[in-house]
Amino acid sequence: AELSADGDRVFLLEQRELPVVERYVTLTTPAEVAEGIRAMVVRGAPAIGIAAAYGMVLAARAARGEGAEGYLHALRRAGALLDASRPTAVNLSWAVRRALALAEQHAPRDGEQRFQEMAAFARALHRDDVAACRAMGRLGAAHLPDEGAILTHCNAGALATGGYGTALGVIRAAIEAGKRLRVLADETRPYLQGARLTAWELHKDGIPVEVLADSMAGWLMQRGEVKAIVVGADRIARNGDVANKIGTYAVACLARHHGIPFYVAAPWSTVDLATPDGTAIPIEERASDEVGLIAGKRMVPEGVRARHPAFDVTPASLITAIFTERGEATPGELARLAG
Amino acid sequence: AELSADGDRVFLLEQRELPVVERYVTLTTPAEVAEGIRAMVVRGAPAIGIAAAYGMVLAARAARGEGAEGYLHALRRAGALLDASRPTAVNLSWAVRRALALAEQHAPRDGEQRFQEMAAFARALHRDDVAACRAMGRLGAAHLPDEGAILTHCNAGALATGGYGTALGVIRAAIEAGKRLRVLADETRPYLQGARLTAWELHKDGIPVEVLADSMAGWLMQRGEVKAIVVGADRIARNGDVANKIGTYAVACLARHHGIPFYVAAPWSTVDLATPDGTAIPIEERASDEVGLIAGKRMVPEGVRARHPAFDVTPASLITAIFTERGEATPGELARLAG
Repeated sequence: AELSADGDRVFLLEQRELPVVERYVTLTTPAEVAEGIRAMVVRGAPAIGIAAAYGMVLAARAARGEGAEGYLHALRRAGALLDASRPTAVNLSWAVRRALALAEQHAPRDGEQRFQEMAAFARALHRDDVAACRAMGRLGAAHLPDEGAILTHCNAGALATGGYGTALGVIRAAIEAGKRLRVLADETRPYLQGARLTAWELHKDGIPVEVLADSMAGWLMQRGEVKAIVVGADRIARNGDVANKIGTYAVACLARHHGIPFYVAAPWSTVDLATPDGTAIPIEERASDEVGLIAGKRMVPEGVRARHPAFDVTPASLITAIFTERGEATPGELARLAG
Repeated sequence: AELSADGDRVFLLEQRELPVVERYVTLTTPAEVAEGIRAMVVRGAPAIGIAAAYGMVLAARAARGEGAEGYLHALRRAGALLDASRPTAVNLSWAVRRALALAEQHAPRDGEQRFQEMAAFARALHRDDVAACRAMGRLGAAHLPDEGAILTHCNAGALATGGYGTALGVIRAAIEAGKRLRVLADETRPYLQGARLTAWELHKDGIPVEVLADSMAGWLMQRGEVKAIVVGADRIARNGDVANKIGTYAVACLARHHGIPFYVAAPWSTVDLATPDGTAIPIEERASDEVGLIAGKRMVPEGVRARHPAFDVTPASLITAIFTERGEATPGELARLAG
């Protein structure tokens, strides 16, 4: 697994070193987990939610000797740290909120029991995420063509989730169902999740994949090479607007221009019914040097700023359908899946 | 100057090392000039045309002792080498064709005189290119707004031409005319001409510039930050279809989606009336590793191919106007400027 825990340690695959080096880092405090999320050792909305839940387990373990009040204080502090590590993906605050609800409920109990319960909660959240990916994968797979190239942006795969993946889960499920698909992976500047992560995990699984610079997607669509597009999401507003990795919006515009279906796959934990539409989603701005320096080499002259919005919002109107473990819907009808 | 010659040597700014290192390379044979063009030490359609003309001067100098037949043979061989160095920009074959026409005309004359005439031809071609940039700059400047951000893709500036620039010439002329403009430069993967070259030359000239990853352009358009788009061209077909750096087509689609004017600036030498439309323009495919390796670091896993079409074609229908030194026109009316 690319993300796991054994109670007093959290193990994260150091995603910043892929595809060249496959190295795990061991984290032992909620602060270390928060920093790992902020620095993007682990990324992807579902994965950072799971990592945060494991971070709360570390807090519960450290506070085993505390009384109810001290325990709650420690858990809330850990939750605040984790929640503040990145703003856009709602799965993070969703996981922290659920952990804190459990903490409030079991705070009066024995320290060891609290720890075991928090660990069981995190493991269940992790397991549920994989099950959700498989469920949305089955739904989405039916929409993909029998053969041809599917384009995706960023990494919404096993590395971005508890395993299997959201967008890549849809593609995996389609291939498991016998469809002859190949993947066109936008390299996804500046972090290059497509080149480094999507290509890495698909190639490992024997799924045909080619990488392209983000700027090439329009041209390949124009030439008829792209049959459908599937991406993940970091937050979905009530009206079906979707925040996802910067560049997703441009891909959606290009898909519309070329009449290509544009699908979003995400667990229900990514749906934020409290956010009415995309304008209310906070868009993280990251450091200019994450764009201006590549592999430590300066590509933008000193004194010139590089822009770095980390996400953008694709309006519901550009999205063909959204797949979740609760079912599939057009963006406008998504809220009805809330049940 | 970023590109110059003194008769027996051609000097090229080593553009692959910008913005960190400012170093000139000295070339003494047509084969070295051809390799410099192929390896993109110098790039940009007008600039590689001028470099090729200087390469022909080196050939004329080396063949001073030859009779008419030996001279023509040497010049034709040099022309073939230079012409084959890159396929898409038509300025290259245009410059070589003009040099060969001169060679045929003056082959019977004295070797030193031939050399001086070829040198005068190359200098005039260089001078004319700068004059053309200034002329199209004045025309285009009138179309830009009085203030706000202009987006450009790749580098169509002083570094891509004899000086001043085509797309950046339009922006320079507008600023010289008192408009308060700033530039948003697409970084332009994989070669990063926008980050490394456009930002470098504009910053040196005190023109406000910010760099963005190519995938951010759509989002900035959506937010109303982009007032107009100006790009250069590598070849313009008779019907007004424009081949330019890969990613230009996507920018044009996004401009159309957002109702933003999309302008092309290019010297008449870029117009290829013999090519009826964009489907007939040869699109250079470059090495996969130019996408997969950045600053020597592997970003795409071993065994996975990275696509690398170096250019794309923007259909005339997406272009608001084309500026040349002969005048401005909608793409559909371009051919009438042929006079």
